[in-house]
Amino acid sequence: MIVGLGNVGRAFLRLLIAKETELRRRYDVRWRLTGVATRRAGWLADPDGLNPIAILNGHWPNPHAQPARNVREWLEKARADVLFEASSLDVQTGQPALEHLAAALELGAHAITANKGPVVHAFRELTALAGERKKKFLCEATVMDGVPIFSMFPLGLPATDLQGFSGVLNSTTNVVLTEIEKGRSLDEAVKRAQATGVAETDPAADLDGWDSAVKVAALAIVLMGVPLKLEQVQRTGIRELSEEKIRSARAAGLRYKLVCRAVRRGDTADCTVQPELLLASDPLANLEGTSSAIRFDLDVFSLSIVEHNPGIEATGYGLLADFVRAVHP
Amino acid sequence: MIVGLGNVGRAFLRLLIAKETELRRRYDVRWRLTGVATRRAGWLADPDGLNPIAILNGHWPNPHAQPARNVREWLEKARADVLFEASSLDVQTGQPALEHLAAALELGAHAITANKGPVVHAFRELTALAGERKKKFLCEATVMDGVPIFSMFPLGLPATDLQGFSGVLNSTTNVVLTEIEKGRSLDEAVKRAQATGVAETDPAADLDGWDSAVKVAALAIVLMGVPLKLEQVQRTGIRELSEEKIRSARAAGLRYKLVCRAVRRGDTADCTVQPELLLASDPLANLEGTSSAIRFDLDVFSLSIVEHNPGIEATGYGLLADFVRAVHP
Repeated sequence: MIVGLGNVGRAFLRLLIAKETELRRRYDVRWRLTGVATRRAGWLADPDGLNPIAILNGHWPNPHAQPARNVREWLEKARADVLFEASSLDVQTGQPALEHLAAALELGAHAITANKGPVVHAFRELTALAGERKKKFLCEATVMDGVPIFSMFPLGLPATDLQGFSGVLNSTTNVVLTEIEKGRSLDEAVKRAQATGVAETDPAADLDGWDSAVKVAALAIVLMGVPLKLEQVQRTGIRELSEEKIRSARAAGLRYKLVCRAVRRGDTADCTVQPELLLASDPLANLEGTSSAIRFDLDVFSLSIVEHNPGIEATGYGLLADFVRAVHP
Repeated sequence: MIVGLGNVGRAFLRLLIAKETELRRRYDVRWRLTGVATRRAGWLADPDGLNPIAILNGHWPNPHAQPARNVREWLEKARADVLFEASSLDVQTGQPALEHLAAALELGAHAITANKGPVVHAFRELTALAGERKKKFLCEATVMDGVPIFSMFPLGLPATDLQGFSGVLNSTTNVVLTEIEKGRSLDEAVKRAQATGVAETDPAADLDGWDSAVKVAALAIVLMGVPLKLEQVQRTGIRELSEEKIRSARAAGLRYKLVCRAVRRGDTADCTVQPELLLASDPLANLEGTSSAIRFDLDVFSLSIVEHNPGIEATGYGLLADFVRAVHP
């Protein structure tokens, strides 16, 4: 069951097909695609299984696919065990993804999301609901693709106190800043990021720091357990920086990056997203293209995780990894 | 039950005391130290519990402590649930640590090691034994302290193929190379590393690449599942490098680091440890002091993990984290 067949949903479906044998052999996991939903095609279900390759090639609706009127009817017709949410983000409400995930859990399916909205707006509620139904609500793909961030806590780092974290988590601003350093204008830089598939048609959410703000909020809520609201993240995008400023910093051995930070303050966390000047030798300053990095400051030590120039498969892999974690006996 | 009260064993014991409340509250884990063994004091057990603070202060043997003649008698007298192995490394055989861990598992205790020897020489056997007895054999502290490396696989990165990895995993050579770059001789550099507690009294295992070779072998054996022998790791230390060569590379914008690499080749892996010239902008080149880093190349993406200048508590934490993973319900 997949909601959303954009780049992420399609990448996930390709991986699911490519790893079919491995999933069966290593994890005894078998799967069947019983439903797909997109804005254009609506809610389509077939409990006997839709043909995933035909769907990737755009040959659908399948003649056996039954259209449903809404997410609940769709989940029921498809007899779903797992829902994968890969629809596009609504920063302010997390909807309708939030409703999809809640419906899945209520009807007894695991709920796995690549959409950050529901994590920021309803992590506690969805986790509690999952606990009641003895199902999983997982969200690894929402930050740094399939890199184990959420799944590293708590049992990768038990009995630690996460005091803060900092990172560069948005690819579009990374690419745009590098292109401006090379002499391009903001507009040209954005077009270049769009041409390589890094930036979306509307790059505002990236340039204005919304994507980063949602990520820092998601991390603080999940990993620090603080009841943070998105509005509490102090957010400054990169549009305020003049091209001249970016280039002269570069010439002086410094680089601007859109940096996310969170620091624990009692029962909450101070979270910021803003362009910061970093020394060229700073590991965060060396990130190029789609690479991203995060540093965690724990009471016992600090560690950083870097993802090196991933493609879209990496995000699809985040959904696949959560799938194994949800259903592996 | 702790074997070895050197720096690591003591750091672990301090953390165990400092985190006592947290372990009880967050994980419902309670502990009692029922045995300690060191070369000097022999095998001491007390099922009612030894006083850990007195032991850290050197006030022992405790009057109630019963001396045992060997590891089995000691484990039985102490009624051990978990054995922590923190004795010093024997590169060539992994003994006597290997025997301690096997005895613990056979007598129904979890076996947790900070000593790399048994991982390289008997990982399969100890893991199989643990499986039979439904106990855990864990070794997180052996590479990069408490940073979750071994515990990131398999469920942090399920259904992936680890094609290779590379890293800088030895602190002594890091510190020594930096000091030589600054103008010191090899001897002076080694003394400096010893003065700050980074290098051991006999630095040969570090300088000649043995410590790195054991780590690369441990990682390949555990994470790639290959039946590698330590002799198969191609090993070159840093003594061959002249001070002049190290300094002129630095002046040219390059740095020597003792780099570990493994690349999968069919059913085995090609493993090397050797000084390599890295660009100053390479993340591995920027590591200073006790910092270490590893890059994993997976079929779906590549990620790196960096540990920032840890102290000895970080290694102790590796044992503590494995403790929680072993006994947490």
